[in-house]
Amino acid sequence: MSSLLSQLKEHIHDMEAQMVEWRRHFHQYPELSFHEVKTPAMIADILRGLELDEVRTGVGGRGVVGVLRGGQPGKTVAIRADFDALPIQDLKDVPYKSKIPGVMHACGHDAHTATLLGLASVLAGHRAEIPGTIVFVFQHAEEELPGGAKQMVEDGALDGVDAIFGAHLWSSAPVGEVWIGSGPVMANADDFTINIQGKGGHGAIPQQTVDSIVIGSQIVMNLQTIASRNVSPLDSVVVTVGTFTAGDNFNVIADTCRMTGTARSFSAEVRDRAEARIQEIVEGTARMMGGSATVEYTRGYPAVINTEAEAEIVRQSAVEAVGEAAVKTVEPTMGGEDFSYYLQKVPGAFVFIGAGNPEKGAAYPHHHPRFDIDERSMVISAEVLGKSALHYLFTNQA
Amino acid sequence: MSSLLSQLKEHIHDMEAQMVEWRRHFHQYPELSFHEVKTPAMIADILRGLELDEVRTGVGGRGVVGVLRGGQPGKTVAIRADFDALPIQDLKDVPYKSKIPGVMHACGHDAHTATLLGLASVLAGHRAEIPGTIVFVFQHAEEELPGGAKQMVEDGALDGVDAIFGAHLWSSAPVGEVWIGSGPVMANADDFTINIQGKGGHGAIPQQTVDSIVIGSQIVMNLQTIASRNVSPLDSVVVTVGTFTAGDNFNVIADTCRMTGTARSFSAEVRDRAEARIQEIVEGTARMMGGSATVEYTRGYPAVINTEAEAEIVRQSAVEAVGEAAVKTVEPTMGGEDFSYYLQKVPGAFVFIGAGNPEKGAAYPHHHPRFDIDERSMVISAEVLGKSALHYLFTNQA
Amino acid sequence: MSSLLSQLKEHIHDMEAQMVEWRRHFHQYPELSFHEVKTPAMIADILRGLELDEVRTGVGGRGVVGVLRGGQPGKTVAIRADFDALPIQDLKDVPYKSKIPGVMHACGHDAHTATLLGLASVLAGHRAEIPGTIVFVFQHAEEELPGGAKQMVEDGALDGVDAIFGAHLWSSAPVGEVWIGSGPVMANADDFTINIQGKGGHGAIPQQTVDSIVIGSQIVMNLQTIASRNVSPLDSVVVTVGTFTAGDNFNVIADTCRMTGTARSFSAEVRDRAEARIQEIVEGTARMMGGSATVEYTRGYPAVINTEAEAEIVRQSAVEAVGEAAVKTVEPTMGGEDFSYYLQKVPGAFVFIGAGNPEKGAAYPHHHPRFDIDERSMVISAEVLGKSALHYLFTNQA
Amino acid sequence: MSSLLSQLKEHIHDMEAQMVEWRRHFHQYPELSFHEVKTPAMIADILRGLELDEVRTGVGGRGVVGVLRGGQPGKTVAIRADFDALPIQDLKDVPYKSKIPGVMHACGHDAHTATLLGLASVLAGHRAEIPGTIVFVFQHAEEELPGGAKQMVEDGALDGVDAIFGAHLWSSAPVGEVWIGSGPVMANADDFTINIQGKGGHGAIPQQTVDSIVIGSQIVMNLQTIASRNVSPLDSVVVTVGTFTAGDNFNVIADTCRMTGTARSFSAEVRDRAEARIQEIVEGTARMMGGSATVEYTRGYPAVINTEAEAEIVRQSAVEAVGEAAVKTVEPTMGGEDFSYYLQKVPGAFVFIGAGNPEKGAAYPHHHPRFDIDERSMVISAEVLGKSALHYLFTNQA
Repeated sequence: MSSLLSQLKEHIHDMEAQMVEWRRHFHQYPELSFHEVKTPAMIADILRGLELDEVRTGVGGRGVVGVLRGGQPGKTVAIRADFDALPIQDLKDVPYKSKIPGVMHACGHDAHTATLLGLASVLAGHRAEIPGTIVFVFQHAEEELPGGAKQMVEDGALDGVDAIFGAHLWSSAPVGEVWIGSGPVMANADDFTINIQGKGGHGAIPQQTVDSIVIGSQIVMNLQTIASRNVSPLDSVVVTVGTFTAGDNFNVIADTCRMTGTARSFSAEVRDRAEARIQEIVEGTARMMGGSATVEYTRGYPAVINTEAEAEIVRQSAVEAVGEAAVKTVEPTMGGEDFSYYLQKVPGAFVFIGAGNPEKGAAYPHHHPRFDIDERSMVISAEVLGKSALHYLFTNQA
Repeated sequence: MSSLLSQLKEHIHDMEAQMVEWRRHFHQYPELSFHEVKTPAMIADILRGLELDEVRTGVGGRGVVGVLRGGQPGKTVAIRADFDALPIQDLKDVPYKSKIPGVMHACGHDAHTATLLGLASVLAGHRAEIPGTIVFVFQHAEEELPGGAKQMVEDGALDGVDAIFGAHLWSSAPVGEVWIGSGPVMANADDFTINIQGKGGHGAIPQQTVDSIVIGSQIVMNLQTIASRNVSPLDSVVVTVGTFTAGDNFNVIADTCRMTGTARSFSAEVRDRAEARIQEIVEGTARMMGGSATVEYTRGYPAVINTEAEAEIVRQSAVEAVGEAAVKTVEPTMGGEDFSYYLQKVPGAFVFIGAGNPEKGAAYPHHHPRFDIDERSMVISAEVLGKSALHYLFTNQA
Repeated sequence: MSSLLSQLKEHIHDMEAQMVEWRRHFHQYPELSFHEVKTPAMIADILRGLELDEVRTGVGGRGVVGVLRGGQPGKTVAIRADFDALPIQDLKDVPYKSKIPGVMHACGHDAHTATLLGLASVLAGHRAEIPGTIVFVFQHAEEELPGGAKQMVEDGALDGVDAIFGAHLWSSAPVGEVWIGSGPVMANADDFTINIQGKGGHGAIPQQTVDSIVIGSQIVMNLQTIASRNVSPLDSVVVTVGTFTAGDNFNVIADTCRMTGTARSFSAEVRDRAEARIQEIVEGTARMMGGSATVEYTRGYPAVINTEAEAEIVRQSAVEAVGEAAVKTVEPTMGGEDFSYYLQKVPGAFVFIGAGNPEKGAAYPHHHPRFDIDERSMVISAEVLGKSALHYLFTNQA
Repeated sequence: MSSLLSQLKEHIHDMEAQMVEWRRHFHQYPELSFHEVKTPAMIADILRGLELDEVRTGVGGRGVVGVLRGGQPGKTVAIRADFDALPIQDLKDVPYKSKIPGVMHACGHDAHTATLLGLASVLAGHRAEIPGTIVFVFQHAEEELPGGAKQMVEDGALDGVDAIFGAHLWSSAPVGEVWIGSGPVMANADDFTINIQGKGGHGAIPQQTVDSIVIGSQIVMNLQTIASRNVSPLDSVVVTVGTFTAGDNFNVIADTCRMTGTARSFSAEVRDRAEARIQEIVEGTARMMGGSATVEYTRGYPAVINTEAEAEIVRQSAVEAVGEAAVKTVEPTMGGEDFSYYLQKVPGAFVFIGAGNPEKGAAYPHHHPRFDIDERSMVISAEVLGKSALHYLFTNQA
């Protein structure tokens, strides 16, 4: 093992106080997706202070890309952090609480960015030992469709890059654990709204009406056949109707019915099939009953699918960082992440770094107004990502 | 035909101005169901002024019964009017608008009472010619369960009575028309509330949940089998789910689901069957799916079922009053009326007197804040009810 | 009451032995629908022997019409009997058992014809007393679509006729009873066959198939909404799927599914609606699921709808024949009868004459290979029909 | 690589003629499951001729176990072949066609056994080079529940064994290919029969009946929710209703309804859940509708789940035998195999050896009366199994 690899943990711990300071600064000055101004400016300033070989701003709109060329020839590997916040009022009672009313870092992106800045600082200080190039991708707007990742990729953020790694601090995993897996780790996450138009009327004169509640109920039952009949049992799909609202009065047949729901899958083929079947079932059922219906289907981010070799590199890096027992195989989750766009272009892996700790108040789910992390997760994340990048470069050295 | 019968129309027209005056007085001073005080007092005063043979107050709580014994022996026939108002703010712009905030005669009971007082005045003036006894039943609290009719019957209002007639001024029928029929004319009108308890959870993790929307949808479909499989095609039933509400979020499986609806029928047997099947279907479906559900089933008034002979008497009376062409066979309606309790005890018939006239502002449905009647409907109602009572007595004279 | 009316019972009883003899002759030599040769020939011979004013054969194909002009002016009334048999092997052990293999009078048409011949004999002997004309309609092919009635009407059998009466001996009513009613007494009786084409395949690979059993099940549930939502609760409809057959193997997804069923109603409007909805539901459901389906819908005879005045005439005649207590209001039955075609042209009524008597072996349902009647039902039927015709003529005498 | 490993292919090819001879002998004298007599006797004779260290007969009833102790210390590895035939009439036209009427080796077990005898012959000749012990498991009755594997395990066939390998010649894979995978490769394969008891009756009088076709249809729809709501989208389940039979007559409501189907899964937990939900849905739906229903649920063999390390050993052995390009990752199939019982006790892997070749008549599916294999698959199978056993022993050598 190179001395950089073997001493990386120590170097990162030396940066811990700085990482915490940065994180708390970002936490107090959160910026909404597609409205980030001060955050990317500060990132660029820090990167420039590290004397990176290249610092590009405004990538794909508001992203920042820093390039560090190592002292030896080799591949190019990227590491990504996102930096946008959410339209949530911070209800925590901590000194670093958000100073911006109604805006909050409730998903950990502040820490992602501070972590990557810390890691960049360490690696910049040892560039001579690095066999290849490291690209630091600071991304805006992960929380809102269409997402900053897509824009940055289109704007060349991955040009010349051979592989990419990324991490999410994860409050439902205890600090100290790392969750990693090969294949799909986050789903295609789409949502839909169904509007049914029947024909209302007196509850006792059904023959003059088209009962939109009966149509809606048939649709709910028919949608169950997507999972049971239209998708391979060896594959995954969920179609859930989460809300069903119809009617104002117990003795009036409801004119309209509205449903909203979510459709999740991992493969593109199953995603297409589910969307098509929802359309066919909704429109066909309504038409058959003498009514009509529309589906507004919105595609969220595609599935995050880790490549096998890169997932294995992360796993080994995690074992070095936290020990065999604390590294778990991640169950694919159904949330969405635009890291998928990077993986559609190059191999790579996305890893979940445990950040939960009820004793320190890190006990709330992501997007909760009291969300917080155990800040010790940042050094773990930095080490796992840093080692993954370095292992990748050393392994693939010519 | 007796001279009283042949001159009844004329006598009633002589009372028209008085009837309108009474009606407008009641209209300005409406009283809610079970809270009537001044209205029954005024009714009793007027009846006493007519020197009826008997005037009982507080019958069944707040009802008033007047007895007029004719000059010749014969049967005893009752005529009923109801006198309670509704908790609705009067929005009409007329001189006789309600003076009581939030209370209004929005169903025509003011006119029912004025009509019967007018008819009692006429008949009291010709008592010598009457072959039998006429009982004037002024009923409180028709609008609210359990209804005044049940209480008055239990308190002896119909003791000694052989038959009964009643009328409803009907705004959806044009003034000048009379609607009458034999058999059921108003339905058993019950309502129900269904509460389903599933187990909520993440929209992508259905296996840890019990999806209350799927249960609700199955219940809606299963309820359709009551009409299609559980009731004779020769009989009538309607089970309508009028509202269906579940879920707060498109990607969360709904914990609970709430439905409300109405069940209508004409026979007691079908009513019992429908109620029992709703219970079985709701509880059985929820249990089968791993959830639970309750039905709160509230019985409204039983069906109003006119007896054949008395309906025919009313029909003939109506033909005399408005001519053959203006007398229609009423389609049974699905509304409720506690006149049914009188008909459970003695033969009789309930008739609908056209009172609609858009040109005079009588264009709104019953229970509407702008509801009004064409007041000419009162003399028609008085004539139809008066002739029905007299025909009954003359026909059944020993 | 005319002397003919008052003595009719007696005259008919004088014919009883002859009627039995005729009936047993027809019973031994049954002829299938649309293949009747000897039966109409024998009917015509007998009618000619009665010196009727007119005897037409080959009416509408194989029907026979006899005309008896009374001695006094008046209306024209028809009485109808049908004379075809069924493709059933007679399994009874009686002397008058069918001599034709595989053909049997298993519905009582033999007795209908013998009864009408007996009645014609009586009336022909008293023609001077009859105020009008009586037309005896002997109809072929009641048992098979399109039915002889339609053909005879089109061929003028009812030309000049003012009203018509007919009867069915009824084994489920005890001999001595008569069942009559106004309005619909027999339903529109249609049947349908549904063929669903899915796409079969391995039971564990549903995504490559279209599961015809799932489609069929959805269709069954959706068909329930015809009764519950598409037809007025005040009207009648039944849609029953009687057979459902799909699949050969427990672990193979069924390629096709076949269902057969029946649809019954009384009004033409409801019949049309039910047929249209069945089509829409079957085709729409299959299409929505990626399969296809066809409905073969076959209309049986239209509903038999008695007119009010003529039903009342029959009721009074029946009271005279069997006494008030033995005359019942018939519940409309769902079977089919082409007597409906006569009633589409002129007023009239169709009556059910009790013919069951387990002690005499008349204990089997119609169309059963051991079907038989209590022959005493014939004189009752003759009296009810004869009196109905005469009452009609006397009542409507100018 | 040891010289035994590197020369194994050659040694096996030297045995090819003998293996074919044995296979054709077994093919001509097939014996049904649990009725095998001559086959195990011949196997034992051959094994004894090889001077194995131990030959046990009657193991678990009719199985044969041979033990070969190597010249060096080490682990103990088992290789299994099954030897029963099927109740199918052989319709092939080949010299080695079955001589037993109605019994046939239509699944390849004859070749499994001949292959393992050939492999045993080779290994017995090189026992000095083997670092450990090899146990040859010849199993009776794979085709019929409860299966010979369970009995042999209970009778100690795997006592002292550390791992096991087995193979199935596979006609849907072309000869020359080998299919292997880690994790589940064959499913839990259960079947069920549902009997619904309604209450039959006239198609037009549903209110007196309990319609078993409506119950059956509701059950089919409700069963869809097992895949859609009761099992994790990350897990696998199929519930298919393959047959649905009800009713004899289009206008009679069906008294009973019968369905058969299959339920497949990989995990024990999902299997239990599916069985429980089928029971609850069937019984709950029928009860709710006023009928009753029973489920007869028969568990087939449990899922065959290869362990990761042993599957990898097989994969490497296969690559050596047929080359990288011809080794495929097997898609889990939904068939059943009692090899699962061995894997419940020790680690191991089950591999599919391509045996199809239309040009040689090996073009029919397993259990087909014309089923045959390309006999060249036997040497491939012998090599893959032999190398897997040897690799296992060498790798795990102390």
